[in-house]
Amino acid sequence: MNKALHNELIVIDGLQYSNWSREIFEQLREGGVTMVHATIVYHEQIRETLLRIAEWNRLFELHGDLIMPVKSAADIRRAKQLGKVGILFGAQNCSPIEDDIGMVEVMRELNLMIMQLTYNNQSLLACGCYEAEDSGVTRFGRQVIREMNRVGMVVDMSHSGERSTLEAIELSERPIVISHANPASFHPAKRNKSDTVLKALGQSGGLLGFSLYPFHLKNGSACTLDEFCDMVASTADLMGIERIGIGTDLCQQQPLSVLEWMRNGRWSKEMDYGEGSKANADWPAPLSWFRDSRDFPNLTAGLQARGFSDDEVARIMGQNWLEFLDDALQPQPGAAFR
Amino acid sequence: MNKALHNELIVIDGLQYSNWSREIFEQLREGGVTMVHATIVYHEQIRETLLRIAEWNRLFELHGDLIMPVKSAADIRRAKQLGKVGILFGAQNCSPIEDDIGMVEVMRELNLMIMQLTYNNQSLLACGCYEAEDSGVTRFGRQVIREMNRVGMVVDMSHSGERSTLEAIELSERPIVISHANPASFHPAKRNKSDTVLKALGQSGGLLGFSLYPFHLKNGSACTLDEFCDMVASTADLMGIERIGIGTDLCQQQPLSVLEWMRNGRWSKEMDYGEGSKANADWPAPLSWFRDSRDFPNLTAGLQARGFSDDEVARIMGQNWLEFLDDALQPQPGAAFR
Repeated sequence: MNKALHNELIVIDGLQYSNWSREIFEQLREGGVTMVHATIVYHEQIRETLLRIAEWNRLFELHGDLIMPVKSAADIRRAKQLGKVGILFGAQNCSPIEDDIGMVEVMRELNLMIMQLTYNNQSLLACGCYEAEDSGVTRFGRQVIREMNRVGMVVDMSHSGERSTLEAIELSERPIVISHANPASFHPAKRNKSDTVLKALGQSGGLLGFSLYPFHLKNGSACTLDEFCDMVASTADLMGIERIGIGTDLCQQQPLSVLEWMRNGRWSKEMDYGEGSKANADWPAPLSWFRDSRDFPNLTAGLQARGFSDDEVARIMGQNWLEFLDDALQPQPGAAFR
Repeated sequence: MNKALHNELIVIDGLQYSNWSREIFEQLREGGVTMVHATIVYHEQIRETLLRIAEWNRLFELHGDLIMPVKSAADIRRAKQLGKVGILFGAQNCSPIEDDIGMVEVMRELNLMIMQLTYNNQSLLACGCYEAEDSGVTRFGRQVIREMNRVGMVVDMSHSGERSTLEAIELSERPIVISHANPASFHPAKRNKSDTVLKALGQSGGLLGFSLYPFHLKNGSACTLDEFCDMVASTADLMGIERIGIGTDLCQQQPLSVLEWMRNGRWSKEMDYGEGSKANADWPAPLSWFRDSRDFPNLTAGLQARGFSDDEVARIMGQNWLEFLDDALQPQPGAAFR
């Protein structure tokens, strides 16, 4: 492996929800990760989101030698220069804005840069991929997409239904992302995406982050690096080499209670097993070639071995995310906090 | 008019959202109203709902000679005996439970007796009648209906879409209400209900409260008492005489700002005019024969003149609501607060 290449790259992980600690930050740096899109909330509402941000502020204070907040795409380049790991805040549900259109800008002022319109279930904005039927983006959802476009907050449809995703791509005046999912043609999971969605995403200038969460992979935890890289190659053919990146969905060192929170929030009296089942309720076993963030160089090596050029590898490992965010995080004129 | 009959009746108004004051309570008593289903919240969430309940507690303290809280159907009969106006709490949206299934029972403990699953827009539970498309009751919505059934909180689909309403009737193990709406065959408004819905509601043992809000009436504010009573008669034929009541939707002495809150909540940056329009944005003019709660005797007289028997008039004016609530407000065994 050309380890030298990996060290030169701007490496971006398009989604993690790890149990953040100094140990995990050190692993990110050891793995050469320049920036991670960190999920700060799932189902947390306004007040709880502020508590999570306060916890992050404390982490920045304690571990400022290792990590730094990302308040613009320029901060990603700065993190690379400084040898730090940039932390970009994101939400996996729209609960941080509750029912209030004005909260989009307020959350963006607090550096919430990416927000999913739904997490599996129907939300006030759109439909999740676990509902029986998807009636698309709602009246409130249309206004929220416009507002996210205005303030420079990225729409993420990773956990949304097919129709809502296609409508969001169409309605949004700025490209959107699916930060962590794989093609359904590779592995037919509810969370993976049809070629129709992926083509529309690519054509609109959007971005797909490939997931390394075993439930999204062919053969689950036994999926090989070769199989993964084959999927990357065929998706590059479908969407374009500039429209793909990584979004590991790594949930390192999280207890089962966190998985249950992700799956159930507060909405269910019965246990919902999400992508698992009653007999398989726990976190999936990790991939042998991607146990934690220290294994990012394995991805670079795998892509090189698969025949991608150095430029293509750089794109997939982070350059595409960086170029996407260069534009996407820019507020439009008139946003109050510019 | 047989004024004596009206004075004997248990008169129930299936929905009001007036700007509550001693004057309005006096008008309710003067009009012979035994109980009013009072909307305490539209889009208010948990904390705000508690504030509204605290305001009501203060009203009960200040005006205990005129009004009393309704904590069971027995309290309605008690109000009649005492010559007071019973106040039954209801919500016109599901925002008081936010995203939390456990809040159904908590709100029922605080005497929230009726809750709409939606208010015009898509909610976390079901679809409102103003969305372009209705995909029915959501995963969370199914759980909430079961929980409302369990604790004895009435499902109200007055502002919901057709499909969601039919599904709620089907899913709910206990009969539901449409507390304030009219047949679309009488006046084709988005808020009025199809014969399909009304038949299903009647057959399931549910109840329709006829609205006196001019936007729900043929010829609007010019609708005559005769036309209204004709609608009652034809709906009695469709649904059964035991399945109908009154739900005036009286919003007395409310400023325009409250109408705007009802229509827009916090979800819209643009003004949404709801049933009105930019050129007709204000409250509609009141009916000449139903200006406020003092005019309830006009309804009794109109129904008598239309040929309903005294027993039928008594049913429509309140007995049907009372018998419905006798069962509907009973918690099932196991509800913590019984």
